[in-house]
Amino acid sequence: MSWIDDPAFAADRPFGPQTLPYGVVETADGPSVAVRVGDHALPLRPIADEFTGELADLVSAESLDALLAAGRPAWSALRARLRELVTATAAPDGAVLLPLADAQVRLPFTVGDYVDFYSSRHHAENVGRIFRPDGEPLLPNWTHLPVGYHGRAGTVVVSGTDIPRPHGQRKGDAGPVFGPSVRLDIEAEVGFVCGGPPARRVSTSAAAEHIFGVALVNDWSARDIQAWEYVPLGPHLGKSFATSIGAWITPLEAFAAARVPVVEPDHPRLDYLVEDAHWGLDIRLEVVWNGTMVSRPDFTQMSFSCAQQLAHMTVNGATVRPGDLFASGTVSGPDKRQRGSFLELSWSGKEPLTLDDGTERTFLEDGDTVVITATAPGPDGTVVGLSEVVGTIVAAVD
Amino acid sequence: MSWIDDPAFAADRPFGPQTLPYGVVETADGPSVAVRVGDHALPLRPIADEFTGELADLVSAESLDALLAAGRPAWSALRARLRELVTATAAPDGAVLLPLADAQVRLPFTVGDYVDFYSSRHHAENVGRIFRPDGEPLLPNWTHLPVGYHGRAGTVVVSGTDIPRPHGQRKGDAGPVFGPSVRLDIEAEVGFVCGGPPARRVSTSAAAEHIFGVALVNDWSARDIQAWEYVPLGPHLGKSFATSIGAWITPLEAFAAARVPVVEPDHPRLDYLVEDAHWGLDIRLEVVWNGTMVSRPDFTQMSFSCAQQLAHMTVNGATVRPGDLFASGTVSGPDKRQRGSFLELSWSGKEPLTLDDGTERTFLEDGDTVVITATAPGPDGTVVGLSEVVGTIVAAVD
Repeated sequence: MSWIDDPAFAADRPFGPQTLPYGVVETADGPSVAVRVGDHALPLRPIADEFTGELADLVSAESLDALLAAGRPAWSALRARLRELVTATAAPDGAVLLPLADAQVRLPFTVGDYVDFYSSRHHAENVGRIFRPDGEPLLPNWTHLPVGYHGRAGTVVVSGTDIPRPHGQRKGDAGPVFGPSVRLDIEAEVGFVCGGPPARRVSTSAAAEHIFGVALVNDWSARDIQAWEYVPLGPHLGKSFATSIGAWITPLEAFAAARVPVVEPDHPRLDYLVEDAHWGLDIRLEVVWNGTMVSRPDFTQMSFSCAQQLAHMTVNGATVRPGDLFASGTVSGPDKRQRGSFLELSWSGKEPLTLDDGTERTFLEDGDTVVITATAPGPDGTVVGLSEVVGTIVAAVD
Repeated sequence: MSWIDDPAFAADRPFGPQTLPYGVVETADGPSVAVRVGDHALPLRPIADEFTGELADLVSAESLDALLAAGRPAWSALRARLRELVTATAAPDGAVLLPLADAQVRLPFTVGDYVDFYSSRHHAENVGRIFRPDGEPLLPNWTHLPVGYHGRAGTVVVSGTDIPRPHGQRKGDAGPVFGPSVRLDIEAEVGFVCGGPPARRVSTSAAAEHIFGVALVNDWSARDIQAWEYVPLGPHLGKSFATSIGAWITPLEAFAAARVPVVEPDHPRLDYLVEDAHWGLDIRLEVVWNGTMVSRPDFTQMSFSCAQQLAHMTVNGATVRPGDLFASGTVSGPDKRQRGSFLELSWSGKEPLTLDDGTERTFLEDGDTVVITATAPGPDGTVVGLSEVVGTIVAAVD
């Protein structure tokens, strides 16, 4: 019996000892690296004496930056030691558990570059049908490469941060009009936090050396701004106002039992995108809008894995650095209730959703709250949790 | 007569006392903030005693990061004090001048987010004609907003860094082929380095509080990779392998005599893009390919100013942070010899250029060197220089 007296820390719960995601919480002694145990945060600096060598420094830091840079051997050693500590019968000297409901979390790492991919075929086809009704829904390049673009690293915010409605230009009958977005949307995504030594041309077989962990991402999107601006250089202000990321990064190692094949194209992949192991992940998401579960996006439907995305992103010689973040793209499955954006769920606003309180929605209204959660199979029949990413829309700031 | 005995530091030369750009050079004591005086670097840490208060700390740093964060009052005070020091008849105690030919420069600041705009109408029209020959060269949004996208901050490199030819996918007759780019290009641009307190919704009239200085940028572009990947989310691997920036950032204040109107559209601008002062800059660039001057791009031809670009980039609520970098987009004028990319100069490879040594070029070959320089009118009939951005293409790395 662990010293951690929290029913949510049981092995049959998503945030049991098989998960152990990392974050940063405020303590009386300043921000501290912490690990999530059930519905509590365990700050690690107060128990730094329980770690030796490099690990003691890594857990004494104010962010995950040093841990991300430390690389895979340190990541594995830290996780193994944490596992011992949290499953012991006696608490380490000085250990403090903070209920998550009270804990103040921080964005846990300094985001380097942020790349957002577009690797759900169902999402790409849906968006293609909506934005380009006269063309083929899927463009010729799509099955050959993980299409993606750089987002704004400086506006990645931690879960719980309010999202002011963005202003911008949208198409009007007589030229563009300017004002608060009227088609504010979510994108339910799975994000990957990079670490290890800076590297170029990371092969799919080397991905584990550079992917530290996994977090849910909500890539808020102003569809009216995006539709007007995005040709020919892609999304910019329609996305750059905010991207939310879960406060707790679940280590890659926690997903060992969740590995599945990605969806293969109907042609061979180019060599640099071939995998020698399965890098798809059996992650099931849930999207809750003002308390109503509106979608269950299925991450097994993705056509490119995180290893393929990382290989692609660096195959041109671009470096990947600790703190770089990349996201899967909106996760949409084939069924309507598996779509990961309200653009798709409401079919561009034509098919409103009815929430449990009887209200109808197409896009986000001020005061709306969206919560995205997810789980994956863990070892020995357990379940591994991905921490929620939650955000509430607040009125546009003038 | 200044104690700095360098003919290139005369007031009638581009790097005289009217310019004083900042950079970072290696010294025996580690990297040091420095100022360029003629063809020399003056490291500032060795003469930090000449500065008081905050300024002493800023000039003692290993990068410009703290200076960028310090904001406009500190920038003006430092420039005024430097002006006194470099025009004095006696050298400050401990001053060392490093010939630029020997000085080892560093990327002078930590790049936050990097946004690349597309604000030359001639460039946008040329690219439109080449990439989309069946459509209108200019898209409907172009005159209303400064179209732009996020580039990869982690691959911004300082002038002088070799550029390995990138690998990537390009379109083939039977599906994509993978290999080193065969259409490697430049983009001659003017870049703006941001500073001051993090801010949202920076109005055009507040631009000077957030634009620290100006540097030349070469946004290397693999046109074959770009053409295959860029629809619908914009350029990614065709650009993300490297972006070169000049080693010396010329302070915004040096351009007081270079202010000109930007080119106005044939319709009113939306309010947030209206300026209460001229923010166009009379900067004339030169592009030299293996010693042959091939183009003189004219920055007065731009349709959006840096103040308009910054206002647009933040109008949706996105923050601008110290170290953020944005670039103008390729600077192309109406004349053929004013085009800022080889894509345009060679009209997509159809019209080779003949260099002074008799060789012909369309796109870059391994071993080619490109140097971009620029000047602007300075006060009292002087000339203000923008430091060169130079890069040499080396063979693709396997």
